[in-house]
Amino acid sequence: MKILIRGANVLLFENEEAVIKEADIAIQDGRIKSVGSASADFSPEKTIDAKGMIAMPGLINTHTHIPMSLLRNYADDMAFWEWLQEKVWPIEAKMNEEDIYWGSMLSISELIMSGTTCFNDMYRFADVVAKSMADTGIRGAVSNTLFDMMRNEDRDFERAIEIHRQWHGASNGRISTFISPHAPYTCSDDYLKGAAETAKRLGVPLHTHISESTREVEESIRDFGKSPVQRLYDIGLFDVHTMAAHCVHLSDDDMEMMSEKGVSVLNNPTSNLKLGNGFAPISRLMEKGVNVSLGTDGACSNNNQDMFEEINLAALINKGVTGDPLAVPSKTAVKMATINGAKAMGLEKSIGSIEEGKKADIILIDTEEPHFYPKYNLISSLSYCAKASDVDTVIVDGKILMEKRVLTTIDIEMVKSKVNDSVKRLMSSI
Amino acid sequence: MKILIRGANVLLFENEEAVIKEADIAIQDGRIKSVGSASADFSPEKTIDAKGMIAMPGLINTHTHIPMSLLRNYADDMAFWEWLQEKVWPIEAKMNEEDIYWGSMLSISELIMSGTTCFNDMYRFADVVAKSMADTGIRGAVSNTLFDMMRNEDRDFERAIEIHRQWHGASNGRISTFISPHAPYTCSDDYLKGAAETAKRLGVPLHTHISESTREVEESIRDFGKSPVQRLYDIGLFDVHTMAAHCVHLSDDDMEMMSEKGVSVLNNPTSNLKLGNGFAPISRLMEKGVNVSLGTDGACSNNNQDMFEEINLAALINKGVTGDPLAVPSKTAVKMATINGAKAMGLEKSIGSIEEGKKADIILIDTEEPHFYPKYNLISSLSYCAKASDVDTVIVDGKILMEKRVLTTIDIEMVKSKVNDSVKRLMSSI
Repeated sequence: MKILIRGANVLLFENEEAVIKEADIAIQDGRIKSVGSASADFSPEKTIDAKGMIAMPGLINTHTHIPMSLLRNYADDMAFWEWLQEKVWPIEAKMNEEDIYWGSMLSISELIMSGTTCFNDMYRFADVVAKSMADTGIRGAVSNTLFDMMRNEDRDFERAIEIHRQWHGASNGRISTFISPHAPYTCSDDYLKGAAETAKRLGVPLHTHISESTREVEESIRDFGKSPVQRLYDIGLFDVHTMAAHCVHLSDDDMEMMSEKGVSVLNNPTSNLKLGNGFAPISRLMEKGVNVSLGTDGACSNNNQDMFEEINLAALINKGVTGDPLAVPSKTAVKMATINGAKAMGLEKSIGSIEEGKKADIILIDTEEPHFYPKYNLISSLSYCAKASDVDTVIVDGKILMEKRVLTTIDIEMVKSKVNDSVKRLMSSI
Repeated sequence: MKILIRGANVLLFENEEAVIKEADIAIQDGRIKSVGSASADFSPEKTIDAKGMIAMPGLINTHTHIPMSLLRNYADDMAFWEWLQEKVWPIEAKMNEEDIYWGSMLSISELIMSGTTCFNDMYRFADVVAKSMADTGIRGAVSNTLFDMMRNEDRDFERAIEIHRQWHGASNGRISTFISPHAPYTCSDDYLKGAAETAKRLGVPLHTHISESTREVEESIRDFGKSPVQRLYDIGLFDVHTMAAHCVHLSDDDMEMMSEKGVSVLNNPTSNLKLGNGFAPISRLMEKGVNVSLGTDGACSNNNQDMFEEINLAALINKGVTGDPLAVPSKTAVKMATINGAKAMGLEKSIGSIEEGKKADIILIDTEEPHFYPKYNLISSLSYCAKASDVDTVIVDGKILMEKRVLTTIDIEMVKSKVNDSVKRLMSSI
């Protein structure tokens, strides 16, 4: 479909700067055909009057476990191991493919409604998560969570390879499959090497969790004589493009190794706070040239999938932690949620910014609520004022997935009803 | 007007716990007549079907400078003194009473739309702020910012006393006036004593800023040989009921003195982060029995007036700072934004909870967006999921100020237009 977005305030990244320019955006065959004045011979089938709205690249949520929205508000304000072992794992063990599908559909509804157009997921039944992506029109990457030292059901790389064959590049390239060894503390050295070899062979990135808690770092030093980052570096894991979620507790040496190897850090501010893990050293990572993107983590440790909250937190807490009100300015926080996310996922040539030739993953922000007035600086407003509810329209791959806050590909009442059915069954089974 | 709220999930505070019970709420003569099944002889003029909604006490924003929304997004990502001296003060000096009025109207629009029913303001032209309260139907306290060591225009207590005589108890008691010496670093000892005496004579609380930055504490020790809290304690300021905004940098002795004197701490998480001041020791203050409430601070250091964001931050960052995922659970964060705010303002007998006989300051939260599903724990959802945009209905003093997200007492298009006029004039005058 040919779409013309007319007269928007378009967020563009020019020479490392973020700028706003009033422009039309022409979309054709799923891609951005032009940014500026649309050519006279472009005949759109649909024209969106975006006067006064901000058009920006769709948000990229680089660390999710989307079926976990089934457990939103199920276990809060608890100690980590009690939460995981007594509450989360017993109920997760009971989830079947239907639960996973409707949990995914619930998360995708929320993701679209809060402006996310692409996400990077790690969870059991990754093929079911992929199906929910295919059905809804959102973009993303899926991967089964792979362990060998704890809970063995997803140990086998063959299943990951099978999912890759079935889903990688599906739905006009919207769906990718990555390889996700869960974390250094749940995987042996040999297993991690196997994961890296598998990813290399398939030509896809690795997605893992690193140094989320102090306990993880202390136990790594006790058991292996080195930090988790040093261990993965020595194994050669980082020779494959790696996305590392959390990275809260890093030494300077750890950061240097990550910088040298081009590891991307997937920062999850809410989750790190809520579980009491602390503050990732984002300013220092960026000084060392590490690419830092944002994620929500699962809805059981957040408890939402709202990337505008993560943008706001990224811009705020790094100022509080460093004592420097210039740390992570709004433009940087906005890039973390867009182009940096694309770089983390290895997709920066096709998404993450509004540029001619890129895939048309675009969101429109209504700026008419009082919290946007007066309008001195729209880039500031994206970090410090904008809310999920200000997202008016969401376009992925040139297709409208939400228009004036109405989802076009999802029957939300059915999703809520199916989620209630799943929860009822799960609660009666534990 | 008699209003019946039917079948809501009502948030109640019982024996220090927060609980949700399905109930009807009957409202008559501005007060809550009953909570439970409404009596058969109660004939409402208006019935609100609140099935599935959460009914909770209206949020109380205990530290604001509401006319500053005129400067929202005007000066961000800057060092504090450059921000204040080069950007904020020059434009503030040009604001006239009309600017103050429309800036206040803009903030009150945002406050109501995000569920706030009462706020505690400190700014020039407090009588104009009071007029905006009277006109809109919101509840709150106003006070001129009083200095004697910096910018002298509001030095005179007589003006504050005049505003008190004119406005204290006005609009059926919705409006209060407090006495607000700006901060220890902008007021001499004698002046602070005069402020305390004035507040005592009028029978109203004091509202001030204390220990917001490390610089303030260091300079107090250099100039007075003691911390700001110790200095105010020694002066006898705390012998009057005192509300102290910020309190980021406190010693154990400071906290003990505040506990002994019943000083309430007005915690502003976003502002403290954004200006690089850090994290107030909320968990330790609460352990010592200090009453802690929440505020947004002015829209120039936030940049919004959204108390749901402050609730979320209070529940999150105290876990991150202490490393304890049990710190400030959701129920505590919700109390900080409601009953604790009422206590801080000395209004706990009339507002802050849904109880028979209290003023009917009630908000209804729609829980039908995907981010509320599934519904294991509605109290968790208020801190970790609820957004300003979920506020459906706002009632203050028994009067509906917003219904289905439409403001009933404010012409929002006129407010935006008047704000744009003010900004145009101010920008051309500097």
